Amino acid sequence: MERRASPRGPPALDGRDARHSTTRSFTLLLVNAEIIAVGSELLTPHRQDTNSLYLTEKLNELGIEVRFKCIVGDDAQGLTASAKLAMRRSDIIIFTGGLGPTEDDLTRESVAEALGLKLQRDPALIAQLEDRFAKRGIKISPNNFKQADVLTSAAILPNPVGTAPGQWIAGKYDGRDRILVLLPGPPHELKALFEAECVSRLRARIPVQHIATRTLKMAMMPESQVDARAAPIYKTYSDVETTILAGAGEIQLHMRCRKDSKAEAEARVEELTEKIEDELGDAIFSRKGESIEQIVSYLLQMRNMTLAVAESCTGGLLAERITSIGGSSRYFLGGAVVYSNALKTQFANVPKSMINQHGAVSREVAATMAEGIRKRCVSSYGVGITGVAGPSGGTDQKPVGLVYVALAGEEGTQVVERNFLGDRKRIRQFATEQALEMVRRALR
Amino acid sequence: MERRASPRGPPALDGRDARHSTTRSFTLLLVNAEIIAVGSELLTPHRQDTNSLYLTEKLNELGIEVRFKCIVGDDAQGLTASAKLAMRRSDIIIFTGGLGPTEDDLTRESVAEALGLKLQRDPALIAQLEDRFAKRGIKISPNNFKQADVLTSAAILPNPVGTAPGQWIAGKYDGRDRILVLLPGPPHELKALFEAECVSRLRARIPVQHIATRTLKMAMMPESQVDARAAPIYKTYSDVETTILAGAGEIQLHMRCRKDSKAEAEARVEELTEKIEDELGDAIFSRKGESIEQIVSYLLQMRNMTLAVAESCTGGLLAERITSIGGSSRYFLGGAVVYSNALKTQFANVPKSMINQHGAVSREVAATMAEGIRKRCVSSYGVGITGVAGPSGGTDQKPVGLVYVALAGEEGTQVVERNFLGDRKRIRQFATEQALEMVRRALR
Repeated sequence: MERRASPRGPPALDGRDARHSTTRSFTLLLVNAEIIAVGSELLTPHRQDTNSLYLTEKLNELGIEVRFKCIVGDDAQGLTASAKLAMRRSDIIIFTGGLGPTEDDLTRESVAEALGLKLQRDPALIAQLEDRFAKRGIKISPNNFKQADVLTSAAILPNPVGTAPGQWIAGKYDGRDRILVLLPGPPHELKALFEAECVSRLRARIPVQHIATRTLKMAMMPESQVDARAAPIYKTYSDVETTILAGAGEIQLHMRCRKDSKAEAEARVEELTEKIEDELGDAIFSRKGESIEQIVSYLLQMRNMTLAVAESCTGGLLAERITSIGGSSRYFLGGAVVYSNALKTQFANVPKSMINQHGAVSREVAATMAEGIRKRCVSSYGVGITGVAGPSGGTDQKPVGLVYVALAGEEGTQVVERNFLGDRKRIRQFATEQALEMVRRALR
Repeated sequence: MERRASPRGPPALDGRDARHSTTRSFTLLLVNAEIIAVGSELLTPHRQDTNSLYLTEKLNELGIEVRFKCIVGDDAQGLTASAKLAMRRSDIIIFTGGLGPTEDDLTRESVAEALGLKLQRDPALIAQLEDRFAKRGIKISPNNFKQADVLTSAAILPNPVGTAPGQWIAGKYDGRDRILVLLPGPPHELKALFEAECVSRLRARIPVQHIATRTLKMAMMPESQVDARAAPIYKTYSDVETTILAGAGEIQLHMRCRKDSKAEAEARVEELTEKIEDELGDAIFSRKGESIEQIVSYLLQMRNMTLAVAESCTGGLLAERITSIGGSSRYFLGGAVVYSNALKTQFANVPKSMINQHGAVSREVAATMAEGIRKRCVSSYGVGITGVAGPSGGTDQKPVGLVYVALAGEEGTQVVERNFLGDRKRIRQFATEQALEMVRRALR
């Protein structure tokens, strides 16, 4: 795929009249993208590029595949070389970051160097910058004017929420059609700019394609079991790309089909999805990408029911997951984090004698916590969780990972005993997933 | 930095007697690394390479800088091209992933192609694989033997926790010293293998260097304010690399100095750290990388004190953060998630009349929640949080982002009113950071 470039002069970027315009005379036939995230902080152990996840989602929706992602520091040589390589191997190249006013912001200069283009300071952008600073009553320092430097032939992409505009270049490079886009690094600026300026521009330049996708999610099923049952089905659909992803307690099946007509793509992916749904049945909690918290939210609201939780080893994580959904106050009343035994008694009505007899981590205590919190909060359902999240506190009888999850409702109380593998974080994640899955199953 | 390669035959990798050996006759003078993460799933919107964060931390500790990270799909051409480019521009190249038994696992083949090396099936590895499968009572399928393919001149790095071993190649490529390492993708396998096999091998090959690092963390200070005060100091230490990172409510200053002697590196970084500490004073909560949850944990245990929390808009996040620390049951009693007004009264003693008079989001209710939960849990300190996390529920008087955080202790109750910017997740993160910072300051 990497081709040795033939000797040549500056590339012929045919965007002479391209600025502030979105229409073009050509359509890309290939639609492979490369994302280059710029910034030395992204090469430390502390920070990670996340813009590319958002961009990938948006590009995939347009039918564009991301084939390479690169992370490059604030390093002119590295950036120039990366830009050159990307222009050789990818149809669409998106740079994120390095457009700010500081000396470290080198994306504009490096791309100009790689493509043999000049930078010109744009008077309209200078005026905008001056205006913006004047309005905030701040004297503009000269380094800010760097943000008004525009590549010859580039269209300026106005930044609705920041000072650095994006830039868009479309043209021939070494005989091939290429689109190169510069976007700012701060995620909210990047997203606003990409939505407003890039989606329609890209759509105008790529072949009309129809992509249909489905996502099936399952809780508390081992990945191997999902795959053993789903693979014989999806393997017969070679025109649908199927990916399995596994998290703590959650399996996702992503299906994606690209066809010349929308109806055809939808029909194929729907057919496969239905077959897998028939096979996996009610283990599937979501088919549109919703989280289990969202599904539980829908179901509780649909049934006009409420929920309360009493958590020991999960320490508030279950309540946190439930309330991560906006509007959760409509069905989530609250609950108690009963870390100490005294609070298990005080907030969740667990008799002291029961803790003495069975231990705080026991089937009996979990059930009583669920019933107690349901009664105290006057909710339709109550959840109780008690277990050993580790890393310490485990014994031979009650090892790290042992968790009891109970659900109490009008129809009685059920308790599930599980032995989860992993570290404290993973055990807590599993335990809350188990609780949400029990609520979901009770509400179906 | 990218150089056009001169025409040449297969590269002279001088590792003839290198297998199972860690000693080498040369030492790298340059120490720039490139990490290539392999796997098509890492080019979807759903998954991200995280191995590189771990590897970067370990490489930095050895004095090795990561200058490029690339993510490449299960694509032989793309992998081969990436390997060739990396061999030209980087001293140490680490591949992660693509070493499994499936057709999609192409790292070995692609690297062989890029370096002009052959793959040989290793009889000892075949025996190990057969043994491993036999012990589990599973018939070995032929595709598994791919994992026994070893690059000529490579040392085999035994995988203590999985089937695919790593591989290590050191030698000249196009006249330059290069180290290329293949590591498995699953994080626990990668970490175990890197620790056991790579750290000492790398240390033996790179110049003796001494790196001293410090990390200062501050809560609830704007990044601009930290930088305005710290920059005039750190800018005078050009031999110390200083990086500022900002999260929701938390600023980190990372300092790093590399010298020929350990004493010199430590002295320089310590001197700078002390000056910044003098400037920022008790705004700094940690200087060894500890999280604020950990610091609060130390302080509560040191003072033999306990904590309980009553949360409304943060919905359990504060309790979850506190209990993310193993052993937190020694000082955290628990608390209540009082999402509904009825529960504010029932679990945190907030009079109904007070909610009617001031509203659930008010200074008065926050203070009473803190006092109420402290009393109910018989804890040294009680925290109360109430606010509008959004996205809905805001009014002109009480907009989204308005949060009251209260801390009640023996010496009385304090309430802080804040207006946080951002989405629901960010507002909740800020609010809990504010609470932890108030606990920390009370305990100093």
